[in-house]
Amino acid sequence: MQSMPLNIPADADKAIVWTNDRLYLLDQRVLPTQETYLELQTAAATADAIHDMVVRGAPAIGVTAAFGVVLAARESYQSHGSAWKEGVTTGMDRLAASRPTAVNLFWALERMQGVISGLDTGDPEPRLLQEAKQIHEEDVASCRRLGDLGAELIESTTSVITHCNAGALATGGYGTALGVIRSAWADGKIERVYADETRPWLQGSRLTAWELHKDDIPVTLITDGAAACRMQTGGIGWIIVGSDRIAANGDVANKIGTYSLVVAAKHHGIKVMVAAPTSTIDMSAASGSEIPIESRDPVEVLNCGGKRLGAPGVDAWNPVFDVTPAELVDVIVTEKGIVHSPNMKKISEMMAS
Amino acid sequence: MQSMPLNIPADADKAIVWTNDRLYLLDQRVLPTQETYLELQTAAATADAIHDMVVRGAPAIGVTAAFGVVLAARESYQSHGSAWKEGVTTGMDRLAASRPTAVNLFWALERMQGVISGLDTGDPEPRLLQEAKQIHEEDVASCRRLGDLGAELIESTTSVITHCNAGALATGGYGTALGVIRSAWADGKIERVYADETRPWLQGSRLTAWELHKDDIPVTLITDGAAACRMQTGGIGWIIVGSDRIAANGDVANKIGTYSLVVAAKHHGIKVMVAAPTSTIDMSAASGSEIPIESRDPVEVLNCGGKRLGAPGVDAWNPVFDVTPAELVDVIVTEKGIVHSPNMKKISEMMAS
Repeated sequence: MQSMPLNIPADADKAIVWTNDRLYLLDQRVLPTQETYLELQTAAATADAIHDMVVRGAPAIGVTAAFGVVLAARESYQSHGSAWKEGVTTGMDRLAASRPTAVNLFWALERMQGVISGLDTGDPEPRLLQEAKQIHEEDVASCRRLGDLGAELIESTTSVITHCNAGALATGGYGTALGVIRSAWADGKIERVYADETRPWLQGSRLTAWELHKDDIPVTLITDGAAACRMQTGGIGWIIVGSDRIAANGDVANKIGTYSLVVAAKHHGIKVMVAAPTSTIDMSAASGSEIPIESRDPVEVLNCGGKRLGAPGVDAWNPVFDVTPAELVDVIVTEKGIVHSPNMKKISEMMAS
Repeated sequence: MQSMPLNIPADADKAIVWTNDRLYLLDQRVLPTQETYLELQTAAATADAIHDMVVRGAPAIGVTAAFGVVLAARESYQSHGSAWKEGVTTGMDRLAASRPTAVNLFWALERMQGVISGLDTGDPEPRLLQEAKQIHEEDVASCRRLGDLGAELIESTTSVITHCNAGALATGGYGTALGVIRSAWADGKIERVYADETRPWLQGSRLTAWELHKDDIPVTLITDGAAACRMQTGGIGWIIVGSDRIAANGDVANKIGTYSLVVAAKHHGIKVMVAAPTSTIDMSAASGSEIPIESRDPVEVLNCGGKRLGAPGVDAWNPVFDVTPAELVDVIVTEKGIVHSPNMKKISEMMAS
């Protein structure tokens, strides 16, 4: 990975850029302090970028992995020629091992694998690039569609709370939870967005606040612990979050802290909306207990703002995601439609539609 | 305020030290990175130290304020001589204005005022110092007593979650919530303490973890958002927290995030213990809605580890405390006894006992 000048202004809707046969990622680790694009030249570098959270957010990871497969195929065609299919697996395995929870990663790799299976020994790049671009475009279209569907559920102007970043930065563009918020804002239904700062990685503070403020949508930052108190204070109509993987029964894996937020919402009678494209739904996981939950280095919790503040000798527990049981979720919104009080039957029906 | 060498090792039980006619505070803003004592020479400097959170925690604020009155009286006797009572008010007013929520501050000032009222025109310092020292010693004794009472409620060995720092650092010594945990640990009833890091000021990360680790009590740090997920994972028997002010009906004001933690505990059927000396109970506040809640600079939320990470142009909401309704609290433990399912009648009876 190297920092490369890219002659476009940094933008949440351009977190993943393919231009002049090159893949660029907006480095989300250093936002909002720095707005820097990194160029990824290999599938391995792309896998590292996903692992290191240069790019994050389940749909964005899926889109990035698709472009990573293009790079894997290019590398393999350059080194193996007509036997490129032998070499491409290495790169795809690296991509598959980058992060375990976001199912969109595996979904995108499977879709690219399907295209690879149908190719011959010639240069695979044009067809794979076409597929990756299509995955990217479809993701944006899905976000716009589910954003509009979700916004329709908001009956009157209200404030909402969101967690982590499920925005343009986390997707091909527009966003899932923030897609709903953008559409609802356009309809005059959003008074203010309260963004959980989302420790330890501060996606809310660094990314959601950056993205909404750029769009002139009123946003106020709160600590994760203040969300329940904010609900108690009144005026919050909806909790709107994204997801990294939804099980077949509607259990929702999302950023650590989502479960706490949803439990508090239920205590206050506030409705909970999960916004995600169908590529986030894993019909092979019967329930949330079958979703692998990534743990990251405890140093992410022991550090704050890059400084070690946790007492020396002390350990931390750092699961990256938690699972919210389906019975606490009021509605799941995808590009295929809305599922109220989700369960396996309703989700299966929507997926088959 | 100036940093002064004090020939004792920094210790949680010596957060407030009066020695050689001087008042020293362990600077809790820079723990655990630095272990530094500051000397406070005036009541105004003491008020600033409370406001700036050199010392924090309701009982510790009360003890510090009592010593601050000794300094106010010394200053006034030096400048006004036998008319010292005229000057002492200025210093006491400064102390009273330092922080609004911790009622122990006002309780200590009233108790010192009671002594002042009975004094003549001679040097007030010896008698006031005696009273301040007594307040300090009584606070430690209260913590030890309520610690033992609270520990008795824990039936079998379990892990617990605590929030913020209600430890020796937050009191005259030993601690309230951490007093219960210390007593229960001595009885072999504590498997592990999970400490919420407690954004934005990170009292859990910096202070609770430091204090428990020094005492060899197993402690694991978690983000505030991970507490509900940790409860879902199992093995948590109790939530044990302190308080900054308890209303006559049992509503509990405590560090922001406490309410979220308690709501999650109730969702999981986990018991909630609030540990506090009776000096924290404000019988003049009928309910939590009458407790003034301090708001601090949004920059505390926008910054992390001293670095501005919140997106430019974005605002934050930074209430320092929240109020947990009495009906969510299983038990309040004070040095005077235990109140199960607290309400006004039971609390009044305990206070009168």
